[in-house]
Amino acid sequence: MRPSGRTPDQMRPITIEPRFTRHAEGSVLIGFGDTKVLVTASVEERVPPFLRGKGQGWVTAEYGMLPRATHTRGSREAAKGKQSGRTQEIQRLIGRSLRAVTDLTLLGERQITLDCDVIQADGGTRTASISGAWVALRLAVDGLLASGKLTVDPIKQKIAAVSCGIYQGNPVLDLDYDEDSNADADANFVLLENGHIAEAQATAEHATYDEEALLRLLRLARIGCNEIFAAQARAVA
Amino acid sequence: MRPSGRTPDQMRPITIEPRFTRHAEGSVLIGFGDTKVLVTASVEERVPPFLRGKGQGWVTAEYGMLPRATHTRGSREAAKGKQSGRTQEIQRLIGRSLRAVTDLTLLGERQITLDCDVIQADGGTRTASISGAWVALRLAVDGLLASGKLTVDPIKQKIAAVSCGIYQGNPVLDLDYDEDSNADADANFVLLENGHIAEAQATAEHATYDEEALLRLLRLARIGCNEIFAAQARAVA
Amino acid sequence: MRPSGRTPDQMRPITIEPRFTRHAEGSVLIGFGDTKVLVTASVEERVPPFLRGKGQGWVTAEYGMLPRATHTRGSREAAKGKQSGRTQEIQRLIGRSLRAVTDLTLLGERQITLDCDVIQADGGTRTASISGAWVALRLAVDGLLASGKLTVDPIKQKIAAVSCGIYQGNPVLDLDYDEDSNADADANFVLLENGHIAEAQATAEHATYDEEALLRLLRLARIGCNEIFAAQARAVA
Amino acid sequence: MRPSGRTPDQMRPITIEPRFTRHAEGSVLIGFGDTKVLVTASVEERVPPFLRGKGQGWVTAEYGMLPRATHTRGSREAAKGKQSGRTQEIQRLIGRSLRAVTDLTLLGERQITLDCDVIQADGGTRTASISGAWVALRLAVDGLLASGKLTVDPIKQKIAAVSCGIYQGNPVLDLDYDEDSNADADANFVLLENGHIAEAQATAEHATYDEEALLRLLRLARIGCNEIFAAQARAVA
Amino acid sequence: MRPSGRTPDQMRPITIEPRFTRHAEGSVLIGFGDTKVLVTASVEERVPPFLRGKGQGWVTAEYGMLPRATHTRGSREAAKGKQSGRTQEIQRLIGRSLRAVTDLTLLGERQITLDCDVIQADGGTRTASISGAWVALRLAVDGLLASGKLTVDPIKQKIAAVSCGIYQGNPVLDLDYDEDSNADADANFVLLENGHIAEAQATAEHATYDEEALLRLLRLARIGCNEIFAAQARAVA
Amino acid sequence: MRPSGRTPDQMRPITIEPRFTRHAEGSVLIGFGDTKVLVTASVEERVPPFLRGKGQGWVTAEYGMLPRATHTRGSREAAKGKQSGRTQEIQRLIGRSLRAVTDLTLLGERQITLDCDVIQADGGTRTASISGAWVALRLAVDGLLASGKLTVDPIKQKIAAVSCGIYQGNPVLDLDYDEDSNADADANFVLLENGHIAEAQATAEHATYDEEALLRLLRLARIGCNEIFAAQARAVA
Repeated sequence: MRPSGRTPDQMRPITIEPRFTRHAEGSVLIGFGDTKVLVTASVEERVPPFLRGKGQGWVTAEYGMLPRATHTRGSREAAKGKQSGRTQEIQRLIGRSLRAVTDLTLLGERQITLDCDVIQADGGTRTASISGAWVALRLAVDGLLASGKLTVDPIKQKIAAVSCGIYQGNPVLDLDYDEDSNADADANFVLLENGHIAEAQATAEHATYDEEALLRLLRLARIGCNEIFAAQARAVA
Repeated sequence: MRPSGRTPDQMRPITIEPRFTRHAEGSVLIGFGDTKVLVTASVEERVPPFLRGKGQGWVTAEYGMLPRATHTRGSREAAKGKQSGRTQEIQRLIGRSLRAVTDLTLLGERQITLDCDVIQADGGTRTASISGAWVALRLAVDGLLASGKLTVDPIKQKIAAVSCGIYQGNPVLDLDYDEDSNADADANFVLLENGHIAEAQATAEHATYDEEALLRLLRLARIGCNEIFAAQARAVA
Repeated sequence: MRPSGRTPDQMRPITIEPRFTRHAEGSVLIGFGDTKVLVTASVEERVPPFLRGKGQGWVTAEYGMLPRATHTRGSREAAKGKQSGRTQEIQRLIGRSLRAVTDLTLLGERQITLDCDVIQADGGTRTASISGAWVALRLAVDGLLASGKLTVDPIKQKIAAVSCGIYQGNPVLDLDYDEDSNADADANFVLLENGHIAEAQATAEHATYDEEALLRLLRLARIGCNEIFAAQARAVA
Repeated sequence: MRPSGRTPDQMRPITIEPRFTRHAEGSVLIGFGDTKVLVTASVEERVPPFLRGKGQGWVTAEYGMLPRATHTRGSREAAKGKQSGRTQEIQRLIGRSLRAVTDLTLLGERQITLDCDVIQADGGTRTASISGAWVALRLAVDGLLASGKLTVDPIKQKIAAVSCGIYQGNPVLDLDYDEDSNADADANFVLLENGHIAEAQATAEHATYDEEALLRLLRLARIGCNEIFAAQARAVA
Repeated sequence: MRPSGRTPDQMRPITIEPRFTRHAEGSVLIGFGDTKVLVTASVEERVPPFLRGKGQGWVTAEYGMLPRATHTRGSREAAKGKQSGRTQEIQRLIGRSLRAVTDLTLLGERQITLDCDVIQADGGTRTASISGAWVALRLAVDGLLASGKLTVDPIKQKIAAVSCGIYQGNPVLDLDYDEDSNADADANFVLLENGHIAEAQATAEHATYDEEALLRLLRLARIGCNEIFAAQARAVA
Repeated sequence: MRPSGRTPDQMRPITIEPRFTRHAEGSVLIGFGDTKVLVTASVEERVPPFLRGKGQGWVTAEYGMLPRATHTRGSREAAKGKQSGRTQEIQRLIGRSLRAVTDLTLLGERQITLDCDVIQADGGTRTASISGAWVALRLAVDGLLASGKLTVDPIKQKIAAVSCGIYQGNPVLDLDYDEDSNADADANFVLLENGHIAEAQATAEHATYDEEALLRLLRLARIGCNEIFAAQARAVA
């Protein structure tokens, strides 16, 4: 039995509020149950130094957690003076995932930065961030298309992410904090709507796992991502 | 004429959503028009080193601005590795203001941290933060009283803050970004419900000002704070 | 009774030694009683990036306290690797104050940096810094005028600053450390010779204050600044 | 055809020089072809703060790359003042992997730190680090057993890691730098001798991949890890 | 001919103003010509962690240069967020030199910190710092003896330092900035009154030097230090 | 008697393995007994900002110690976020020493960086670094000459360095860790093959020393450097 009473392949309710803030070219408040992440997409007409003059754009991400997004208050990274290894690992993953579905040459010499700030955390903040970031990116690119700055859509596909894990011996979908902190293994999958994989990461926490378990986790992830793709489609409709 | 069409002594709509997040002992999303600040109050049963064993508590604040809260994206302080002088100045002001209405001895040997994170900025983020922080603090202390951890209320009074300024020669209340960025002078007042002043700061931006102007700004601030006191009362009712 | 035996409206002796060091374009050792601040004005023929090509100059300030300027040794900010919030707040105030009396367009595309280093502290270091910085700036600009680099004086007025506070219930002028550390409220005023205000900051420390008190503090500040204006005039004569 | 002329399932030569340095309780220079990593295991009779008094030990890792381990010189992280996101991601992975085969309770209240410093890089530095770290850990624990500080072996299994990827459409084992920098997708697997998985990470670089490809990469990894297990066994014999 | 017209073995005027500031247990403004360094000695009744419980004290130093001590303004180390290699090298030298003449066991479990802040620089700031630090240390220890906190004097000898160099082919004593920036070689010697050497450092700048030159520089240093010893004796008389 | 049984003027075995790594333009693993330092020389076709357009090149050095190069593990400077004063002092010395034998104008507008990383430490790491850096520089410059990028050799002479010290009252050559940590005084000399001195540094640790001792240490250093010059010649033959 899962602490939340969900079935093994049951996602938490997915909520997506597009255009949650006014200034960003794209923005969204995405919720996977009690996990809430504000994602903004900011378009800047310049590229980082390593891409100057190469005729292509860039998509990147930054991730943060408000100090009291969590059960007990964590320290503020700006006050500590550095981002944790966890933060950097997550923001690298988000950027990489969104670039996997963007044609950077079609984007032109501009950068889109996806800021993912966790307002409330209950497990799965990185996967909610990726899933929300696609919506924010979509909205920002729609604006570029509408204004004529872009004439061809550089976004090749939808992308979504979800966590799964082995909890008390059973593969389950979309871990919440109670499950995540006690899982034998947890995994994050970043999937495309056509079934392809952009990223698979599966980590033994309290017990190693076998190939069969890896495949069962991947299949759960497909179920979850299909729900997310549907929610994304409604949000940008 | 003000860009927003407001009269000189007219506040923007004040919105206060108490208990906006679940984990914090107190939380609120406060809005002064398009300025939106999430404030959480976190109770910790320990005090900073300089107060250990002194039989009193502490109230402190941290302030942050999400990178795309503003019209153009600002850099993330956690990524830059330090908080700006502006950030530090504001969080010092917030903490000082809330301590002005808290009896730290009655609070006991515990610390309450007020995290003020700006979700969307349109002028007045520091005054919205102070005004919202009082609500978050009130909710957190109510919890301590309800649980029996406190038996006497350490909050002595309500406190609120608002900005005013000289815009195109006229004193006006509650500057939005358009006004703030062009004001001759701007001021922030932190006031108590009994009319007393906890903090007055008035700065010449494009023109110095005289004593008469200072008094007129203070009187506008009283008008604004009275509206905020009423909104605070409704929020914690 | 004040610990120093001064009357409520009595300044400490003001000492100004112009040209205290040789290399700077302007320099001064200013004393308000036992508070001693060395201020240098450095002229550089360049402006910060945000002003390049805008046809105007810049005046900025940096502030520091020698580790043993105080009663007990404080840690060296260079060794800790960052400037405190207090330091940043003060240097922002100093720069803003001096810019309030400088016509930056007349200054031309050059920057004047006012370094205010506290040699010995006994209360009022920020107000002594501002008052001394005007002298250093005046000397540096006189040099630019004498050399023909400037033909029109960009300094519009004198500026001075002084602290006041409510000490044991009474408004007093120019707090020393003993008073400052026990004041109910303290205030810093930055005033022009024509009576206008560039900056007013009044903070409740142990007790909030009312409008009447604010006005009495401002009037004390005028008395103090008039003495400082006279001392500045003698120093640059 | 692979640039090196290897077959798809062919590892580069694996070299392991145990006891490469004298001071560390365990040390090894491991080579996967031209990739050379020096790993030392340092035993300290204390645990990090979060584990004090919990009756268990800790295994952790730090990773670094000498500035000229690479084709062109990279900047020294100590001089830049921070570790990159990549460095932190890798050292977190190494520590996690080694903890997966260590019984931390049997280790007792002591910490073993695995320092993995890349002397020369040609792809696969993180997997060489993990594979070498097991040898260094084994040697250090053997010392603790020999000295009587431990009486029961806390290392539960062998662990090894290898990279694989899709290069020009074909799954290949143990990418060198030429392949790694042009791969469609690359993956790192951390495997146990009994076939279980401690960590699987597969990332689309230039093209997403499907479930079948993921399984083929995993099977290549098993081939590679079996060679590494044999080399580890020879090294500690 | 030296730019200043001095003879090869002629020091600049040495000025020592003891008790230049009020709060420090010892303080001095020392001048070697236009080089002016403020040195304070701060006594703290604690020792650094590595000496706790070892029954001995510690003497250490910190060095700083005010931004406009030099001909052109240098950046403030506190603002840059780190001390330069030069600063650290100098403060390590100062601390080591003073410890060479202090019996740390006799000092008891307390620390004396020598803060050397350069007010104005014209060559020789590190040697002026060491020479002044001895005076500040002497004054601080005299206070400890006078108050009965110490009964036996832990200072074993006088110590002084001076620079020398090869300027236009000739060994000269006490380089000023003009000479220092053009010297073929420069050297710093830290000497005891009994003729012994605590530190000798001689560096080729534009030309290497031979043993004979090293000895001639050392002999010039003896001449200079004897003058400094006399000035130190007058200052603490 | 020396702990190692060596005679006072006996060096430890000198080992030099040129071309220890593949990517660097020059590389060497140098050993003075158990002290092992990997030095690489990296050629970059650019100069630091302060030399741009001046028609000359630059030679600089960076130094690091692997965390477990020493008897007990030291913390990793990259993880601490700054280089120690000792590290900076050493790398400044290495760079200065190599520049003393390089004609920077002949080098052209390029920079050669010498990275000295201590693999294993047993005293004398800075002198081994300098001695090895000459070999790495020589190899890198030979490559520039062979490729025709340089036509005239900018290296003017060989340079080598060795430590000496007063151990139990006797001057000895090439201190190992046991001697170094107990020496009364220690010294580092950087010498040219023609007998000239590039750098002499002699420091009292537990006892000051006299002129006669300084000269005896210098003479021991000549003996040691002559052995190093011979080893360097063999390595680059």
